[in-house]
Amino acid sequence: MSPVEESTLRALLADVTAGRMSADDAVAALRRLPFADVGGALVDHHRALRQGMPEAVFGPGKSPEQCARIVTELLDHGSGPVLVTRVSVDQIKAIEAAVGTGHAEAGCLLFRAPAANRPGTVALVTAGTSDSAVADECALTLRAYGFSPTRISDVGVAGLHRLLANIDSVTGADAVVVIAGMEGALASVVGGLTAAPVVAVPTSVGYGTSFEGVTALLAMLSSCASGVTVVGIDNGFGAACAVARMLP
Amino acid sequence: MSPVEESTLRALLADVTAGRMSADDAVAALRRLPFADVGGALVDHHRALRQGMPEAVFGPGKSPEQCARIVTELLDHGSGPVLVTRVSVDQIKAIEAAVGTGHAEAGCLLFRAPAANRPGTVALVTAGTSDSAVADECALTLRAYGFSPTRISDVGVAGLHRLLANIDSVTGADAVVVIAGMEGALASVVGGLTAAPVVAVPTSVGYGTSFEGVTALLAMLSSCASGVTVVGIDNGFGAACAVARMLP
Amino acid sequence: MSPVEESTLRALLADVTAGRMSADDAVAALRRLPFADVGGALVDHHRALRQGMPEAVFGPGKSPEQCARIVTELLDHGSGPVLVTRVSVDQIKAIEAAVGTGHAEAGCLLFRAPAANRPGTVALVTAGTSDSAVADECALTLRAYGFSPTRISDVGVAGLHRLLANIDSVTGADAVVVIAGMEGALASVVGGLTAAPVVAVPTSVGYGTSFEGVTALLAMLSSCASGVTVVGIDNGFGAACAVARMLP
Amino acid sequence: MSPVEESTLRALLADVTAGRMSADDAVAALRRLPFADVGGALVDHHRALRQGMPEAVFGPGKSPEQCARIVTELLDHGSGPVLVTRVSVDQIKAIEAAVGTGHAEAGCLLFRAPAANRPGTVALVTAGTSDSAVADECALTLRAYGFSPTRISDVGVAGLHRLLANIDSVTGADAVVVIAGMEGALASVVGGLTAAPVVAVPTSVGYGTSFEGVTALLAMLSSCASGVTVVGIDNGFGAACAVARMLP
Amino acid sequence: MSPVEESTLRALLADVTAGRMSADDAVAALRRLPFADVGGALVDHHRALRQGMPEAVFGPGKSPEQCARIVTELLDHGSGPVLVTRVSVDQIKAIEAAVGTGHAEAGCLLFRAPAANRPGTVALVTAGTSDSAVADECALTLRAYGFSPTRISDVGVAGLHRLLANIDSVTGADAVVVIAGMEGALASVVGGLTAAPVVAVPTSVGYGTSFEGVTALLAMLSSCASGVTVVGIDNGFGAACAVARMLP
Amino acid sequence: MSPVEESTLRALLADVTAGRMSADDAVAALRRLPFADVGGALVDHHRALRQGMPEAVFGPGKSPEQCARIVTELLDHGSGPVLVTRVSVDQIKAIEAAVGTGHAEAGCLLFRAPAANRPGTVALVTAGTSDSAVADECALTLRAYGFSPTRISDVGVAGLHRLLANIDSVTGADAVVVIAGMEGALASVVGGLTAAPVVAVPTSVGYGTSFEGVTALLAMLSSCASGVTVVGIDNGFGAACAVARMLP
Amino acid sequence: MSPVEESTLRALLADVTAGRMSADDAVAALRRLPFADVGGALVDHHRALRQGMPEAVFGPGKSPEQCARIVTELLDHGSGPVLVTRVSVDQIKAIEAAVGTGHAEAGCLLFRAPAANRPGTVALVTAGTSDSAVADECALTLRAYGFSPTRISDVGVAGLHRLLANIDSVTGADAVVVIAGMEGALASVVGGLTAAPVVAVPTSVGYGTSFEGVTALLAMLSSCASGVTVVGIDNGFGAACAVARMLP
Amino acid sequence: MSPVEESTLRALLADVTAGRMSADDAVAALRRLPFADVGGALVDHHRALRQGMPEAVFGPGKSPEQCARIVTELLDHGSGPVLVTRVSVDQIKAIEAAVGTGHAEAGCLLFRAPAANRPGTVALVTAGTSDSAVADECALTLRAYGFSPTRISDVGVAGLHRLLANIDSVTGADAVVVIAGMEGALASVVGGLTAAPVVAVPTSVGYGTSFEGVTALLAMLSSCASGVTVVGIDNGFGAACAVARMLP
Repeated sequence: MSPVEESTLRALLADVTAGRMSADDAVAALRRLPFADVGGALVDHHRALRQGMPEAVFGPGKSPEQCARIVTELLDHGSGPVLVTRVSVDQIKAIEAAVGTGHAEAGCLLFRAPAANRPGTVALVTAGTSDSAVADECALTLRAYGFSPTRISDVGVAGLHRLLANIDSVTGADAVVVIAGMEGALASVVGGLTAAPVVAVPTSVGYGTSFEGVTALLAMLSSCASGVTVVGIDNGFGAACAVARMLP
Repeated sequence: MSPVEESTLRALLADVTAGRMSADDAVAALRRLPFADVGGALVDHHRALRQGMPEAVFGPGKSPEQCARIVTELLDHGSGPVLVTRVSVDQIKAIEAAVGTGHAEAGCLLFRAPAANRPGTVALVTAGTSDSAVADECALTLRAYGFSPTRISDVGVAGLHRLLANIDSVTGADAVVVIAGMEGALASVVGGLTAAPVVAVPTSVGYGTSFEGVTALLAMLSSCASGVTVVGIDNGFGAACAVARMLP
Repeated sequence: MSPVEESTLRALLADVTAGRMSADDAVAALRRLPFADVGGALVDHHRALRQGMPEAVFGPGKSPEQCARIVTELLDHGSGPVLVTRVSVDQIKAIEAAVGTGHAEAGCLLFRAPAANRPGTVALVTAGTSDSAVADECALTLRAYGFSPTRISDVGVAGLHRLLANIDSVTGADAVVVIAGMEGALASVVGGLTAAPVVAVPTSVGYGTSFEGVTALLAMLSSCASGVTVVGIDNGFGAACAVARMLP
Repeated sequence: MSPVEESTLRALLADVTAGRMSADDAVAALRRLPFADVGGALVDHHRALRQGMPEAVFGPGKSPEQCARIVTELLDHGSGPVLVTRVSVDQIKAIEAAVGTGHAEAGCLLFRAPAANRPGTVALVTAGTSDSAVADECALTLRAYGFSPTRISDVGVAGLHRLLANIDSVTGADAVVVIAGMEGALASVVGGLTAAPVVAVPTSVGYGTSFEGVTALLAMLSSCASGVTVVGIDNGFGAACAVARMLP
Repeated sequence: MSPVEESTLRALLADVTAGRMSADDAVAALRRLPFADVGGALVDHHRALRQGMPEAVFGPGKSPEQCARIVTELLDHGSGPVLVTRVSVDQIKAIEAAVGTGHAEAGCLLFRAPAANRPGTVALVTAGTSDSAVADECALTLRAYGFSPTRISDVGVAGLHRLLANIDSVTGADAVVVIAGMEGALASVVGGLTAAPVVAVPTSVGYGTSFEGVTALLAMLSSCASGVTVVGIDNGFGAACAVARMLP
Repeated sequence: MSPVEESTLRALLADVTAGRMSADDAVAALRRLPFADVGGALVDHHRALRQGMPEAVFGPGKSPEQCARIVTELLDHGSGPVLVTRVSVDQIKAIEAAVGTGHAEAGCLLFRAPAANRPGTVALVTAGTSDSAVADECALTLRAYGFSPTRISDVGVAGLHRLLANIDSVTGADAVVVIAGMEGALASVVGGLTAAPVVAVPTSVGYGTSFEGVTALLAMLSSCASGVTVVGIDNGFGAACAVARMLP
Repeated sequence: MSPVEESTLRALLADVTAGRMSADDAVAALRRLPFADVGGALVDHHRALRQGMPEAVFGPGKSPEQCARIVTELLDHGSGPVLVTRVSVDQIKAIEAAVGTGHAEAGCLLFRAPAANRPGTVALVTAGTSDSAVADECALTLRAYGFSPTRISDVGVAGLHRLLANIDSVTGADAVVVIAGMEGALASVVGGLTAAPVVAVPTSVGYGTSFEGVTALLAMLSSCASGVTVVGIDNGFGAACAVARMLP
Repeated sequence: MSPVEESTLRALLADVTAGRMSADDAVAALRRLPFADVGGALVDHHRALRQGMPEAVFGPGKSPEQCARIVTELLDHGSGPVLVTRVSVDQIKAIEAAVGTGHAEAGCLLFRAPAANRPGTVALVTAGTSDSAVADECALTLRAYGFSPTRISDVGVAGLHRLLANIDSVTGADAVVVIAGMEGALASVVGGLTAAPVVAVPTSVGYGTSFEGVTALLAMLSSCASGVTVVGIDNGFGAACAVARMLP
């Protein structure tokens, strides 16, 4: 129970004792506290951190109207960025009709993009040109969190010199996101080159035995580089969120 | 190329120019530089960080003699902790015969355990009593890195009050490792309660449809809590390494 | 053998004895009895229960004409509700051309919707907005059975307070259907909150490692909450039928 | 919030108002209430039902000492049955050394077996002799809940007359548990014969393409009999718990 | 080596001995014999049987032109039926332009349909209406082989009385083809009712956990009815060919 | 309804008409008829065929006592062969203690082995020496059915000449059982060489990507030779039963 | 380090020593050497071999503009063939607009096709007509490498005589590529017929249990013919590259 | 047909013509020729190559007696090396009792080890110490073929400098075998460093998500390095055979 809530409780008890509040009203107030408490604890604990943190809406499976309504509410009742991911053309149309034009990029729609005010440096490393879509989603989400990620593209391990030519950018970052399909080997190589956190994103890029990203996923989970962590297939958004949990 | 290496290069060139080094010797020295550079860049970059970092040896598939020889070398040529994971009784016997008694715990053998000098706080949350072995390996590895993890045990989501009773310890940690078998739902619940990094470890605990950890693995990768990252099944060691990459 | 059939048999025997029926005709009549008996036993046993129970037709793989013919027959030879699930626009057109307008909702077409006469209370809990389609099918099927289900939506476990804010509706129900995709953790959490029957429906909602519902399915089958039962992926209809078997 | 808890709250507030309790003590008491509330709500709601309900301990992965300690506590702080499932010989020895002799059967150890006081009738139908172990665990768990299940054994669908010869026992039951390995077809046939709840348990019986129960599991989940629900492979305990949720 | 070939060899040797054939020509003739022998052995051995046997062409992956050319050749160089399976509209058009109108049915195109001259009786049993397409392909192929299969449709095991009402047709057949999707249980039930050969065809009918026929396939392979054999998913053509191998 | 049952029915009706049987007794007798009918129909229909057919008991999962009791009953109440498959040493001991010495071979125990009186010829073709165990079980079961199978061993397709050297035995058989592990290609090659029924048995022989027989199973089900049918992995018994259904 | 590089280094050192190059410039030059070295070593080592070797671009996932830009660069900065695989109509349009007309065939676009100057003979064997697309890609890639592959088509193992009739072409080749879907048995048969390298390409041809090439893949990996190697599903391009590594 | 066989045929014809051989004997001789021809063609074609080539016997699934008999025959009827792989202690005992002491190493038993007379150079690269067993089998098989492989061990990609330090040995080899478990990334990195043939062997080394080699297998098949080929899991023997097909 956070200090804030404890003082709320004491004030409430004081009101009851002093007769300023009826027992009925106190019971009603307390009745909602447990749940507010659970959510509230989180908010309080990370308040400083969450200033300006994005609210995210996952587009697929929602009607354009639902999207518009949700975005309207989030913009009205908060002041931070609002990010809609994997948004369709129809959803964009409905949302922008309701709240005005947003920043459309990388299959996402972003409102109230924050300043690039997070100091942590993030390297976003992709194995091939075809991994761009996932990397774009990751980069935009990172920017929604206030980061300014560096992109290092097309450095698949079959041409090791391309990665080594960028080694300073990789080893100098506070966190590295590795995005790769096919056999996903890049995560292991990068994991061995840096002691910073490495978040690996398998992509569904490839054909045949790539099995829509499963091969890269399993390879990344079995990495011989200790301490590499993994998110779901094509989950560039999730990798950015993971980095936002790790860095100042 | 790090400043250190650049000055090495300049010194070498100066030696050649001044006639203090033959062209042959310079070529020989330069010849190894590219590779030393790759490794060296990493070491330099993280030197401050890696002071006292553990060297780890994975026991399975190595003969007792190989283990003894490797541990001897690591102890002789370094000053930090040395950790042998998933070590067998025979391997322990051979290692201790060679280098003296170590600290045996959690299926591991640890030499030169460091002081608990890392300031980051780590909560290690397990769903059931049967996940202990994986949690023990994770905890010992964290201690080998200089952390003092807090254990929160047996808080599976089917009895939510057990987790909620420990909510302060969970939300107060700088990083949380969630260790769970069966359906692995604990990672999602914890991921929603804290904004700190959450590393999820699926365990092979369970039977039937648990499929030796695959169910928990998939569930953790598909978590509805954004930014949870995952390591391989039963990989308590890997989760600890991931945390060590993230925290000061 | 039900009383009805026993009296039929006795009457038949009496007819033979009295010469009112030839042995040939008796043998012919008896010849079909065994099989009628098997079906008849079921009908008799649950006759009270099945008054008004819906006849269901699974749309996919049937031609519009087949659908129209089947629905016509069911309406002609029964008096209860008739429900066509996963019905296409063409099938609706053909059916309604044959038998008149039905109630189209949730991808289904319902005729002779019954009164809400079943006393059992059913809570229908979904993890996300995207699970709505499956929940809609489940709700309509429950209504076709005479239930009045309560919907509790968008209470995924990553925001636990949303579920806890609805805890009374969940714990007060006579049966709970939990509908969730992604990691399906909601079934375990709900299973721990109520002692009533919990039927879990994995949905194909999610992407990447959700594997079209397989992850949620496995997680629900491996639930740490004892006594949760599971139906097939996206099978909202089946979950409703399961509840109809359980409740008065 | 249940009436019981509301009166607790009012009493607490009255104590504070009357000066019988300090604000500090009231805050401390309230601080634990939210969580007690969550658990408590469940207990209250089903109190009548849960009288005499068994506490269950899953044996595997726990040391004999842990088992003994847990069973001791459960016996000391409750009055209902205590059931240890999948218990080993060593665990039995340690438990019985601590608390005296229990009833060992079906790989379980049961203390304080209740009277057979639950009125619901349960038919436990198995496809083959080799499914007995799972059926035994299910039957004992049902008895621990106060049921008196009827066993109908070895009625696999390849010899349909064996099942039909027992049709009255099957169709007359308030709930049916179907336990089958290999192709698991029995669940579909039974599901079509009764309108009562059918809980299907796939077993790992079989070889080759049975894939340790996966085939039966998938077949049961895909049953053409509407409303059959499924628990995990070999989970006789879980099926019994599911029935206990459904029947009075 | 068949008698025909032996006499060919002797004649050839006689020709060489008698100087009617040069050694060069004899070597050239013998050179091709081994391979002709392999194919020839088969043809000879089953000549009586193969009179009127269909030549089959699998449509998918072939251009309309290739189809037309192949069918033309088969019609020109043989006298039996020619069957094109899974044929597209374009392929039909090209074929019929080349060789005249065929008999189009069940996604196939049949030329020179034989008389129904095979004495074996074949029952073709399907579980649901949606299995019709596979059954149609099987039935047409059987007719192309000269059989007159009996169709028994929509007798899924959840309504056992429907199958039992047709029991005489099933048990009276010389071979039974069982076609079922979902959980495929029908194969086991039929396998237990007849001692004749049972060929099971899993279909991709169903959704969710049916996994496009894999569940039915595994269930049929694990059937508790001894001696049921299985062909690939949706392979109605293959089942007909299997029956043609078995029956006179 | 078979003639036998029809006459039973007529006799029963005659008894009632003549007053030799009360209506009560007639009803009781008729009540059991439906189920006896189902089983009886099968027996009658194939009576000629089933003379001397083996009763089979699957050993695994049964206690030695259960095995002994079952075998005793089968020997006492029948006159044909009794075959126990996959029988353990303990089971053999218990069975032979109860009923005397049987014929132990191929992991089976056979009593009352019949004369080799079935005229159909069966070729049993194996790919490698390691497939022998499955072939032995198949051969013994075939002998229990009265067949005299021919063994053609170690003719894997990587050495095609070995198979071709035995081509007459293969093409001359009335049915061929192909037993192969690894990639299971032998089934396709044999299927192309003969027009007789081919039953393919995948074995768990091999390592690595053989996946305990799954690879051979899938390959056999996907065979390019039309009309090859498949039984479960290592199911030599099942293949023999399948042949017994096909041949006179 | 290759001789070329060693002399470069010596020259550079000489320049520094002689004052012809400043230390700054030398450091700058050396700084890029390590990485150039890694790539350069490869180039040097195989320079003779790689004369005229194709540069390959994988089309999918790249925009037409990206394709055009990449091809332009490759044509400008090299003199060998440039091959774009799995190229779309739009990509072809963009590329040809930029660099002129190429040779479009087999879903590829080839520029500067080399003379057929590689002496190694390659047989390209396919099981069915439907495997043509993969074979075409393989053949064109081989031609881009300077080979003149021989095509042997439609020789699936169910008609062994077709393969045996082509045995001289198969056994006479310096390398054989076997392309087959369904059960992929052709690789094993060919592997047993030749001692030359055999590269097997599973194709996604087939349906049902072919599982889009997985069955053929597993079968080829489990081949009983020693020393057959495998590439990914439908990877005709990769097989050609493998052959180019093996042959002069 | 090879020249050798052609002359055999001509001689035979001459014998018949000259009356030195009866037509009966000639037919008998010719009767076996076709098959001998198939096998013989292979032998002849590669005779120069196969001089001294090893005969290999796969141990598992064969009795010690079978092994002894096979090895005896191979030694008696040939003059080249004989290699028994995955041989057990009992098999070694039986074989050596029959034919004398062989060379036991790497789980194999080798007789008549050839001189190291093959000129091709083979690099055998392993990712970790635990891959040694597979590498040992591969190395011994290569030696049985007359190669002298170079071992480069423990160069997993997480420590790239270890591989780069050995780059000359890797890029200088005529063929490279890459042996790796876990994520198998080494194959891609090596494939990018050399233009020589690369044969990748996935090993079952690793735990959790390594899935006994499946992860490494899939990763190697999906390698971004073109032209890498793959053999089955742990198949060191097969990789050596593949190399023997490729190199002089």
